[in-house]
Amino acid sequence: MNITRRQFNYGLVVSLGALTVNRFPSQSTIRINSKRIIDHILALAEFGKNPQGGVSRVAYSDADKSGREYVLGLMRDAKLNVTIDAAGNLIGRRSGTDGGLARFLIGSHIDSVPEGGNYDGVVGSMGAIEVAQTLAENNIIMRHPLEVVVFQNEEGGLIGSRAMDGELTEKELDLVSRSGKTIREGIKFIGGDPAKLADVRRRKGEIAGYLELHIEQGGILDSEKINIGVVEGIVGINWWDVTVEGFANHAGTTAMNNRQDALLAAAEFIQGVNRIVTSVPGRQVGTVGRINALPGAPNVIPGKVVLSLELRDLDAAKINRLFERIQAEAQKIAADSKTKFDFKSINVNIPAPTDPKFRSVISDAARDLGLTTKLMPSGAGHDAQDMARLGPVGMIFVPSVGGISHSPREFSHPEDIANGANVLLHTLLKLDRT
Amino acid sequence: MNITRRQFNYGLVVSLGALTVNRFPSQSTIRINSKRIIDHILALAEFGKNPQGGVSRVAYSDADKSGREYVLGLMRDAKLNVTIDAAGNLIGRRSGTDGGLARFLIGSHIDSVPEGGNYDGVVGSMGAIEVAQTLAENNIIMRHPLEVVVFQNEEGGLIGSRAMDGELTEKELDLVSRSGKTIREGIKFIGGDPAKLADVRRRKGEIAGYLELHIEQGGILDSEKINIGVVEGIVGINWWDVTVEGFANHAGTTAMNNRQDALLAAAEFIQGVNRIVTSVPGRQVGTVGRINALPGAPNVIPGKVVLSLELRDLDAAKINRLFERIQAEAQKIAADSKTKFDFKSINVNIPAPTDPKFRSVISDAARDLGLTTKLMPSGAGHDAQDMARLGPVGMIFVPSVGGISHSPREFSHPEDIANGANVLLHTLLKLDRT
Repeated sequence: MNITRRQFNYGLVVSLGALTVNRFPSQSTIRINSKRIIDHILALAEFGKNPQGGVSRVAYSDADKSGREYVLGLMRDAKLNVTIDAAGNLIGRRSGTDGGLARFLIGSHIDSVPEGGNYDGVVGSMGAIEVAQTLAENNIIMRHPLEVVVFQNEEGGLIGSRAMDGELTEKELDLVSRSGKTIREGIKFIGGDPAKLADVRRRKGEIAGYLELHIEQGGILDSEKINIGVVEGIVGINWWDVTVEGFANHAGTTAMNNRQDALLAAAEFIQGVNRIVTSVPGRQVGTVGRINALPGAPNVIPGKVVLSLELRDLDAAKINRLFERIQAEAQKIAADSKTKFDFKSINVNIPAPTDPKFRSVISDAARDLGLTTKLMPSGAGHDAQDMARLGPVGMIFVPSVGGISHSPREFSHPEDIANGANVLLHTLLKLDRT
Repeated sequence: MNITRRQFNYGLVVSLGALTVNRFPSQSTIRINSKRIIDHILALAEFGKNPQGGVSRVAYSDADKSGREYVLGLMRDAKLNVTIDAAGNLIGRRSGTDGGLARFLIGSHIDSVPEGGNYDGVVGSMGAIEVAQTLAENNIIMRHPLEVVVFQNEEGGLIGSRAMDGELTEKELDLVSRSGKTIREGIKFIGGDPAKLADVRRRKGEIAGYLELHIEQGGILDSEKINIGVVEGIVGINWWDVTVEGFANHAGTTAMNNRQDALLAAAEFIQGVNRIVTSVPGRQVGTVGRINALPGAPNVIPGKVVLSLELRDLDAAKINRLFERIQAEAQKIAADSKTKFDFKSINVNIPAPTDPKFRSVISDAARDLGLTTKLMPSGAGHDAQDMARLGPVGMIFVPSVGGISHSPREFSHPEDIANGANVLLHTLLKLDRT
């Protein structure tokens, strides 16, 4: 009975000027259990725990497998109907009142990078389970069916969410993951069936929406003391290999004005990338993270340098404009230094914008909870970018202390995590009503 | 009889204003055999020959051993009294008329770097043997005893000449050389006796002087169209390992103004080294030849960079002054980029000046032969720098086409090689007379 009344109430929100009043405060006052979500995060941190802090819980490792078993238990405790899909994703279903509606998905991942932290992916996974448990405890049945998804192997290339997009190739299944197992072997190891990936695939329109709570992994919310990041989208990522060809020669006998030093030219290029990327307003980033100088001896002038170039932005056109300027800069450096630059495109991830309505509902939910918000891009990739191909998505960020991530020093304050889970809960409830 | 007359004639040179006339033109008109020296160089090039040109005749390899056997034959043909000393150096002796005088040494090496050229070391070794053969053919006995020395393993650390200085340690003998053999094994392999290195050691004052003919390995003589380089000295070489500490972080989520990018700081440093080294007149060189950025992934901001710094100059004080400026520049970069620079001295070779009298005699000999000369440092290390600890040394450079060395493309023109050998011959004869 109670259930029926709640269903009936959905959507009955009246706006009175600046004040929004929910005529049925029983729902707007619901809160997740702050202690329980932190307890779950700390308990999960035991699986793959490192002496220096943080975890090494790379996908398909023993730590990953036993961590997933612990999480399956939490999902069952939250009254979810639990299965492992053929890709190895953990799926926890909760029925809705209207069987004809598409499902809402909420979730994240629990695998880590080697020597990673305790919050990346975990906050969103534990947050989604906590939301489900809060719904169960409050006997709320949504209109839409709900799925809590813990995607497998996010850190190794968004494998679980890409399986839902139908993007995993046979060739990719044979790549060796950080666990030492191929992805195919890994999927079997965690209870999936790589021969049945077609069953996992979802079609565009099949989901009502996907919401993911995540730590920011950057330092903006922390330094600006803002509670919640409303993610505008997941940036596009372009990778190039840049080769600088000079001429290797004897470092003792080749006069300074007679050199074709590929590393000296590369050094100017690295500075040029930084100068160009920071020359225009915005949140775009550009990074040279890998460099190799050949032959690589202290007494030989480097004849060849290979380095990586990565550009990220929400706007693919902006990435292209920056890249054109970087190429032009390289040509200038090449002419001045008697070297040659060559660019090879290695990978392109197109930007994945979040849904405008989802963004505004997240903002509303946060405001109702008395939390400050900031609209911001996600500079990191997330499973949400793959879900964006299937339907509208929204992402909720909570502050990362010092912006540190993929590190044992990764940390988010318990109150920020609880805030994020409450925003997830109320965003979901608001979306369910509309 | 002839011999006696020649001896008698030595030193009887009369200067008439700008014109120097040797009253016994039979000696000043002696020339080495240009065809023969080139034939020997080409024949030696067969030992360790590479398909791409040049040779891989690293010390203690089979190619090195058979090349040395060929050279021993040439030394015998030149009427030298041939031995292999305990260090494995090839020694060819020729008596002088005055047994009480110290010996003159002439020579170089025949070992190569991997994928090296046909001229580095070979020109001086074949030149020294050619001088001995020319003396023999012309029945000239010098006042001083003469030794032709083909030093072993110059490229692997001046091993043969350092043995003469008594510098080889037991520990160094156990280092593995490029041949795969330890130096100790290598010395045995080429006919030396590592247990008797004390016999090889010579004392300061024991040699009247050492002369070495060598290719320039730089491009100055070639580009300025000068026949002979008169070497002022062998530069000092200082090596440091430079560590730049930043903070590794996520390249997607860390804003550009919130980074401590060790590679960006290293790039500015590399340019700073170049700017400082080229900011003062002179032939000093500074090189960053090796770089390693960690963790080294395209999507991670480098947290640590280790790079090599090498400075070379004839003047050790100048090296120190440049290094002080480079350190100061590093401190400035560190402050601006929130990174930390650390310098660790790895190796110091002090400069080895040549003897002023030897230099002037080389210049005179070249001028008498109608050749142009230029006073210049040797940017590369040579066995001559070890001989400089035992007595006065002189070095004669011939042009390297394009300044290319340690490469299959290393080349010196036959006429330049013949010129160099003639300068070696007449420098030796002039020094012998004084």
